[in-house]
Amino acid sequence: MGRWEPNARGRLEEAALELFAERGYDQTTVAAIAERAGLTERTFFRHFTDKREVLFAGGPVLEELLVTAVAEAPAEKPAYDVVAGALGQLAAILNERRELAPRRQVVIDAHAELRERELGKLASWADALSRALQERGEDPRLAGLVAQTGVAVFRSAFESWVVDAGNQDLTAILRDSFAELRVAVAGM
Amino acid sequence: MGRWEPNARGRLEEAALELFAERGYDQTTVAAIAERAGLTERTFFRHFTDKREVLFAGGPVLEELLVTAVAEAPAEKPAYDVVAGALGQLAAILNERRELAPRRQVVIDAHAELRERELGKLASWADALSRALQERGEDPRLAGLVAQTGVAVFRSAFESWVVDAGNQDLTAILRDSFAELRVAVAGM
Repeated sequence: MGRWEPNARGRLEEAALELFAERGYDQTTVAAIAERAGLTERTFFRHFTDKREVLFAGGPVLEELLVTAVAEAPAEKPAYDVVAGALGQLAAILNERRELAPRRQVVIDAHAELRERELGKLASWADALSRALQERGEDPRLAGLVAQTGVAVFRSAFESWVVDAGNQDLTAILRDSFAELRVAVAGM
Repeated sequence: MGRWEPNARGRLEEAALELFAERGYDQTTVAAIAERAGLTERTFFRHFTDKREVLFAGGPVLEELLVTAVAEAPAEKPAYDVVAGALGQLAAILNERRELAPRRQVVIDAHAELRERELGKLASWADALSRALQERGEDPRLAGLVAQTGVAVFRSAFESWVVDAGNQDLTAILRDSFAELRVAVAGM
């Protein structure tokens, strides 16, 4: 095993995002990412299986966070509030990554295969939220409806945040989006 | 050009769905689909570019229907009602395909690449709805929020319909889903 490299993971992520922006995702090799980070390829592969995983490694971690947030919410809390709260926790974490998350999204939006992968990630979050709600005893249909809707609101808020390059507070945008949806739905 | 084959497109679609269910999507060839339909491969390629298009040819047609429904809705109608109305028209059309749509979905759900393609189709619908709302003068952020949410409600309703093999009325499930969301959101 090689020696310990301080914050190797963060340096690799930063290097990858720089190169994806400069050269394009397809033109960027793992060798170039490692070189830009001042690390070896061997170190890269201790942290990521391939260059795509640099962009998507966080997905399962965040999904687990959503599931835990739903499971730990007070039993009497309504499903929609539970989902809004879980997604609010997610927003707070991404808000701390405001230097990286919008740049990551620009790379993904420019690449059809990465966009599909990103949609798959969001669909997986919605399915996980739905299952977690059902484990709380929610009706499957309501669980699916609330989970899908919550992720749609999150996606919409996230897109607004990215367009503004992360300058606003994502948790505030998300809160506003849930409030706007309430107004829009009530007017039906 | 070959001779006119009555309802060739419908026969090819039926044959493809039978074979996808029997053998799996990957194991089904265009030659086998044409043979099952009692048609030539040449006739298949007059209707579809490949076997995947048998499953997804309707996507752009339905997207166009959504956009037209939004454009033609009364100017004073609120955005959320406009989207719910457009998706209701879509539900009515799919309801007429209750023999095919649930079988199609089973094929897609069993195949990772087809699931991603399906998610891409839904994302494209949401983007098209958002743009159509913006052309009516809606604020981009509200347009995106309402479009994403509407498609999420549709997806949830559609999944319930498919689970029940199309026995219920999709337009009724969709109406109920919008009503359930209103109750859930109002309780926040």
